[in-house]
Amino acid sequence: MYFDSLDNVIRLLSTLPGIGQRSAMRIAFHLLKNDPRHTEQLSRALQELRTTVRFCSQCGGLTDGELCEICSDSSRDPALICVVEEPQDIYAIEKTGEFRGLYHVLMGALSPLDGIGPDDLRIRELIERVKAVSCREIFVATNPTLEGDATAHYITELVRRPGLAVTRISHGIPTGASIEFADSGVLARSIRDRRAM
Amino acid sequence: MYFDSLDNVIRLLSTLPGIGQRSAMRIAFHLLKNDPRHTEQLSRALQELRTTVRFCSQCGGLTDGELCEICSDSSRDPALICVVEEPQDIYAIEKTGEFRGLYHVLMGALSPLDGIGPDDLRIRELIERVKAVSCREIFVATNPTLEGDATAHYITELVRRPGLAVTRISHGIPTGASIEFADSGVLARSIRDRRAM
Repeated sequence: MYFDSLDNVIRLLSTLPGIGQRSAMRIAFHLLKNDPRHTEQLSRALQELRTTVRFCSQCGGLTDGELCEICSDSSRDPALICVVEEPQDIYAIEKTGEFRGLYHVLMGALSPLDGIGPDDLRIRELIERVKAVSCREIFVATNPTLEGDATAHYITELVRRPGLAVTRISHGIPTGASIEFADSGVLARSIRDRRAM
Repeated sequence: MYFDSLDNVIRLLSTLPGIGQRSAMRIAFHLLKNDPRHTEQLSRALQELRTTVRFCSQCGGLTDGELCEICSDSSRDPALICVVEEPQDIYAIEKTGEFRGLYHVLMGALSPLDGIGPDDLRIRELIERVKAVSCREIFVATNPTLEGDATAHYITELVRRPGLAVTRISHGIPTGASIEFADSGVLARSIRDRRAM
């Protein structure tokens, strides 16, 4: 429609979540009109992002090495694993100071309508972790949404065995909300009040 | 909050129009989770954007050289200048095939509340162009909004002189809408029906 390089930027931007064709055009023209150093910075920051940040090979959280800080921390309880949907959920839970175990990131939640099944999530990796270490409790902190609840039930059935407690984050946080943006106090309470599934 | 490079991407993304802190986080994590080649492509496309596309030194439209295709086209009528707010408005008007003059992009509209005054727009450049060439008609096609109308009146007062017609795009397009996304047929009619100010 315009110039190849502009069309290209618009096309790539419009594949990002929450950005449609018109927003992509507005952003592209904003970049063209503003200080070129801003575009340069953004371009470099994107490049750096994928070379410096990766996912922890054990829990799937963010790290700049092989294992993340939490998985490498020997003072944490390896027999207690908290299952979350996204890496950013870890930060929300860490901020409460209520949890001293390890994490496992699923990278999403079951959502048949969106074509997301068990094989698209890190569920197999969770089963293997639970088998490998002597696990005492699996604390499922997926979002209290339709998809998060379904995922919690699915995981519970898979890992259930004598001597292993499976708990769910308490529904103190409003149903339909996301853990990532929950109020820290409410979230802290939900962790203390976690209940057996 | 997370890693420097991730924080950096989130901060830069949230300065873009229509993207807040949460959207920026969602986009950054989307990029981290998806094929690294997509981030690489976006990074390169942004870099290419500012090296290949620039603004025409005469009209302010998009070009890959010094002058744009329209300004370089000797078959177009240089005595008829269409004033628009944004470079993308040129494409909407060109698509109608109704206009055979040259353009002048203001790069916005007067908006005292947003701190945008005459010196922030390419109004001085317009006055100089009108003086330099023997201009017959200035056709003001700023958006039919409060800001666009105010800008049209401001320009009319500045350029008014005997023998120079100043016309305004007819209000066939709904007030409050933007020219960039107007229906091409409605826009064509508005160009034919343009009236003296």
